[in-house]
Amino acid sequence: MRMVDLIAQKRDGEKVDIEDIETFVREYTDGNIPDYQASALAMAIYFQGMHKEESSALTKAMAASGDQLDLSAISGTKVDKHSTGGVGDKTTFILSPLVAAAGVPVAKMSGRGLGHTGGTIDKLEAFPGFQTELDQDHFLQLVNDYKIAIAGQTGNLTPADKKLYALRDVTATVDSMPLIASSVMSKKIAAGADAIVLDVKIGSGAFMTDLDSAKELATTMVDIGKSLGRQTVAVLSDMDQPLGNKVGNSLEVQEAIDVLRGEGPEDVRELSVRLAAHMLVLGGKVEDVSAGEALARTYLQDGRALKVFRDFVERQGGDPALVDQPERLGQASFQIPVKATKSGYVTHIHAANIGQAAGRLGAGRMTKDDDIDYHVGIELYRKVGEQVQKGDPIAVLHANEESVEELVQFVRDSYEISEWSAEPRPLIFSEME
Amino acid sequence: MRMVDLIAQKRDGEKVDIEDIETFVREYTDGNIPDYQASALAMAIYFQGMHKEESSALTKAMAASGDQLDLSAISGTKVDKHSTGGVGDKTTFILSPLVAAAGVPVAKMSGRGLGHTGGTIDKLEAFPGFQTELDQDHFLQLVNDYKIAIAGQTGNLTPADKKLYALRDVTATVDSMPLIASSVMSKKIAAGADAIVLDVKIGSGAFMTDLDSAKELATTMVDIGKSLGRQTVAVLSDMDQPLGNKVGNSLEVQEAIDVLRGEGPEDVRELSVRLAAHMLVLGGKVEDVSAGEALARTYLQDGRALKVFRDFVERQGGDPALVDQPERLGQASFQIPVKATKSGYVTHIHAANIGQAAGRLGAGRMTKDDDIDYHVGIELYRKVGEQVQKGDPIAVLHANEESVEELVQFVRDSYEISEWSAEPRPLIFSEME
Repeated sequence: MRMVDLIAQKRDGEKVDIEDIETFVREYTDGNIPDYQASALAMAIYFQGMHKEESSALTKAMAASGDQLDLSAISGTKVDKHSTGGVGDKTTFILSPLVAAAGVPVAKMSGRGLGHTGGTIDKLEAFPGFQTELDQDHFLQLVNDYKIAIAGQTGNLTPADKKLYALRDVTATVDSMPLIASSVMSKKIAAGADAIVLDVKIGSGAFMTDLDSAKELATTMVDIGKSLGRQTVAVLSDMDQPLGNKVGNSLEVQEAIDVLRGEGPEDVRELSVRLAAHMLVLGGKVEDVSAGEALARTYLQDGRALKVFRDFVERQGGDPALVDQPERLGQASFQIPVKATKSGYVTHIHAANIGQAAGRLGAGRMTKDDDIDYHVGIELYRKVGEQVQKGDPIAVLHANEESVEELVQFVRDSYEISEWSAEPRPLIFSEME
Repeated sequence: MRMVDLIAQKRDGEKVDIEDIETFVREYTDGNIPDYQASALAMAIYFQGMHKEESSALTKAMAASGDQLDLSAISGTKVDKHSTGGVGDKTTFILSPLVAAAGVPVAKMSGRGLGHTGGTIDKLEAFPGFQTELDQDHFLQLVNDYKIAIAGQTGNLTPADKKLYALRDVTATVDSMPLIASSVMSKKIAAGADAIVLDVKIGSGAFMTDLDSAKELATTMVDIGKSLGRQTVAVLSDMDQPLGNKVGNSLEVQEAIDVLRGEGPEDVRELSVRLAAHMLVLGGKVEDVSAGEALARTYLQDGRALKVFRDFVERQGGDPALVDQPERLGQASFQIPVKATKSGYVTHIHAANIGQAAGRLGAGRMTKDDDIDYHVGIELYRKVGEQVQKGDPIAVLHANEESVEELVQFVRDSYEISEWSAEPRPLIFSEME
């Protein structure tokens, strides 16, 4: 294969040889194809898209470009959940113990990543002493014995995707459906998933701001998953305002524990229940989603999911007493209210801006060497549809510095308050399988 | 300017800031913008095209990226002619002395380049002793005193174009009208042209194989020229079969001398006359193209153009006796006929293949270190429209090796011979200014 011919074929919208895609991924990873050819190819893909067979081949080749986790020692169907990213999303901490309680193994390897808050691993480390460095045997043993373990990613997973993503980031080729889909799916497949539940977010806090593009992305990912022998389901859920009321690290863990206790905000609970239901179906524990939802609700009500979570925290080195008293996870030095400047109904809360505010308080990291502040974040006192009086606190900043006037203003400006309430958006728009 | 933003703007079809294009060219030339961003931009341009102002700015910035020839010491309007490249094109050797004879200064700096034959400079070196290395003062002096000098390119002209072209060549982004047009025009402008006559070739031996794309390229180049204050005219001429009967280096010089003597093939003469006429108009010597044509024909008939050429060769170190006896320019060791295998009319001669055959005989260079064989090439005994009998020689290979059966077959296969003659193609399709 001559790389320039592959680029020209894609540029001209011709169907590309699967072998050429494999060769590209292998040689690019090995440094034998220069970045300038890869970026030209990515831009051609941006304009011409990819055929199903092409994006499947790209995904498979990227998954195979580095280490691949072998979870075959774990009995049962390993179902992974992936969210395309949003603000206040703490469903992982709820549905993982939930499906584990039903016997579906949760063998989660998570990265840290950059963002407005930490990743799954970082948030778990809000429990002092929580151990995320598990060697592979121990990790597999824990999942086999207790159905749940969550560890930091080790090894060199999908180096092709890492290299290509970094290149796309600086060449304006991130926003390509097949490239986004291949990137997500290659990581899930390298991480050993047998089946995958995708939570595709839509709205002001999501990568996809409209339903059509979210559907296109979901379809592309589901097609890739199936073509590579992984049962894949996508749930398209709202991210036009933050999910739940708390955004941060320990704040989100606290809210997840609330839900595990059968309390907590409805949106977090309902989305967790739906996602867990799909995982239960894929894991072979129930016949259909409504049976899955019923089971999930039972395990939230009777405390079984909470108990699995408590034991899980304890096994990985955290203090289980903190699960019983999550307020002891600690809090930031300052609680600074954000007050409404007029009365009316909340019609929108710009989710990305709330995430950005949390990030600026120190909840996330911008470079991989940044430290995360577990205790800072934002608590929303009002969500979309709720009434507010001028002067009411609509949110609180949990800060470790006192002078945050600018962020108070920023959070206030993220709220849209109108005389009339707006048509409510659904929490779940659509499901695809 | 963030380069990734410029790429995204172009990708999205937005109008780009002229300053950003200038910054891109400058920083790319200086090595501060990596190839992978430049190639992504080139691919975005491939799909989105460029606005007129953008391609003008790109051309101007590339022209200014290195040395620019200052021809202001030469009195009169410096009119340059550029061909987009074809097979058997020797018009430069005819129209240069022709317009010089009329008092229009010809100050030509030519590169060597790669191709199926040598470039202008190489072909002139078919005259033993011909000197193409002239220092700038001497060059300017010659043009001022005698109206004509042709020298090899010195200095660092349009390094931005060189770098970008090399990148486009390996990233499938050569075939972009605004990028082709900017590349050509930047070189002409850096070479000091006040006015430019473009010969845009169309057909099987040309970069543009159809009239529509040739027109688009011509329009783009004319627009760029005008926007940068250079009067620019484009002639769209046929290149579906080679121009004239001889393809090679000394072979083409010989044929040019034939035309300067008032003989030679009609197509070469007519195209030279038309291009020269436009140069005479732009140079302010005649009112319109028909007056220019009349003048050009006179100078071919009365031997004035030939005399200018003879003196020019002598001044630059060649033996003028060779202009009087061009057969003494030498010939290859073997003349190998190509015979028709059937009777009929020649309906097509694949120009690019004839060029390729000449190249394989050694007439051109594939890498810049290759030597050129001045004497090899192809002579066409039959052109399109002519009748042929089975067994007639239709062409002759001038070779310096005896075993060229494969090339004989290749040249034979480049001829299409049919029972009926085809509708003749015009020599000149269109003119634009």
